[in-house]
Amino acid sequence: MTKKNAVVLFSGGQDSTTCLYLAKKEYQQVFAIGFDYGQRHKKEIECATAIAKKAGVAYEVLPVPIVSMLAPNALTRADMVVDKYSEQSNRTSTPPNTLVEGRNLFFLSFAAVYAKTRGIKDIFIGVSQTDYSGYPDCRLDFVQSLQRSLRLAMEYDFEIHTPLMHLDKAQTWELAHKLGVLDIIQKDTLTCYNGVQGSGCGQCPACVLRQRGYEQFVKNHS
Amino acid sequence: MTKKNAVVLFSGGQDSTTCLYLAKKEYQQVFAIGFDYGQRHKKEIECATAIAKKAGVAYEVLPVPIVSMLAPNALTRADMVVDKYSEQSNRTSTPPNTLVEGRNLFFLSFAAVYAKTRGIKDIFIGVSQTDYSGYPDCRLDFVQSLQRSLRLAMEYDFEIHTPLMHLDKAQTWELAHKLGVLDIIQKDTLTCYNGVQGSGCGQCPACVLRQRGYEQFVKNHS
Repeated sequence: MTKKNAVVLFSGGQDSTTCLYLAKKEYQQVFAIGFDYGQRHKKEIECATAIAKKAGVAYEVLPVPIVSMLAPNALTRADMVVDKYSEQSNRTSTPPNTLVEGRNLFFLSFAAVYAKTRGIKDIFIGVSQTDYSGYPDCRLDFVQSLQRSLRLAMEYDFEIHTPLMHLDKAQTWELAHKLGVLDIIQKDTLTCYNGVQGSGCGQCPACVLRQRGYEQFVKNHS
Repeated sequence: MTKKNAVVLFSGGQDSTTCLYLAKKEYQQVFAIGFDYGQRHKKEIECATAIAKKAGVAYEVLPVPIVSMLAPNALTRADMVVDKYSEQSNRTSTPPNTLVEGRNLFFLSFAAVYAKTRGIKDIFIGVSQTDYSGYPDCRLDFVQSLQRSLRLAMEYDFEIHTPLMHLDKAQTWELAHKLGVLDIIQKDTLTCYNGVQGSGCGQCPACVLRQRGYEQFVKNHS
């Protein structure tokens, strides 16, 4: 049975694009929303616009400069250099300097008001605690807690869907393959912290994770 | 023992001004923060600025137009008329049209990042579920849930303080009296939805609650 409407948090990266196509398969109408928080790579928004057009879904970008105004980070400041990939990055307690404090907290909260205003309860976000890279607001316990907080704040039964929560990157590639969008993910998405579309710069933590996942996915199929 | 630093959510109204003076008494340094979300009465920010100066605390106003961009409401739109006070307003399930969806959710989340960036864990907010007037994000269960969400989002032990949570307006006047700031609350604060400083318009729900509380407080002292 096709469900009615859903909101998808959409950045134009691998994970949120996979979520977008998954939601599109299950829901009659999908509203993709993105956020302009002063990220250095405006190309992210260009990529997202092109993908949303191809997918045939509504896409809106909301300006939220406050998100990066509150705490300095390497994704929004030209004078900071993005940390290189570290084998320890999933385990140490020091988060990378690409951390935007409270980012998913804010994005989910904005999305919730946006959704409620349109009578929508279902919200998709492409976070994963498998490859969470030191960002605490990608984990299941946070998302579950926030779902409760959002329900109490607005007396409305939001459902936050996190279909990638327990998938590693190879499994996310596998999901894209099953959805028939492998080509779109490979060529049209932008995951790279240095702003390179498709296969990326190959150096930053996001590119390393994406590439390793792809190699594992190919190996699983050979 | 005087504690170190605290952040106070500060609008220049009766409740947050009482919180400000309470925090000032208990903490070495207090950071008051306010939010400009396009509220119709800029006078709110003028009043807050004057009170913060008198109290000798740092005060910063953060621009957050996104908060009112997401859902229409009578506090930010000139084409909507503020609902009159209703005896049922504390009991019915229909919130008043002055509701800004998710307001305290956003304000507390912004305050949390602001606080963490300065190494501060204690955050004060002047919400009360006694006089909560139909706003679900003024209640204790919401604040407790959000405290948990904020801790998980940023791996940081925030403490949200709600000293007015179980006070009615008469008791809040009593607290101001004990703090020695009755005169400041009466003359300098702005609680009125129609933007009238001090004793207010006398018609809107905020003025009716404030006035009734004051009369009860005076009666208790006679």
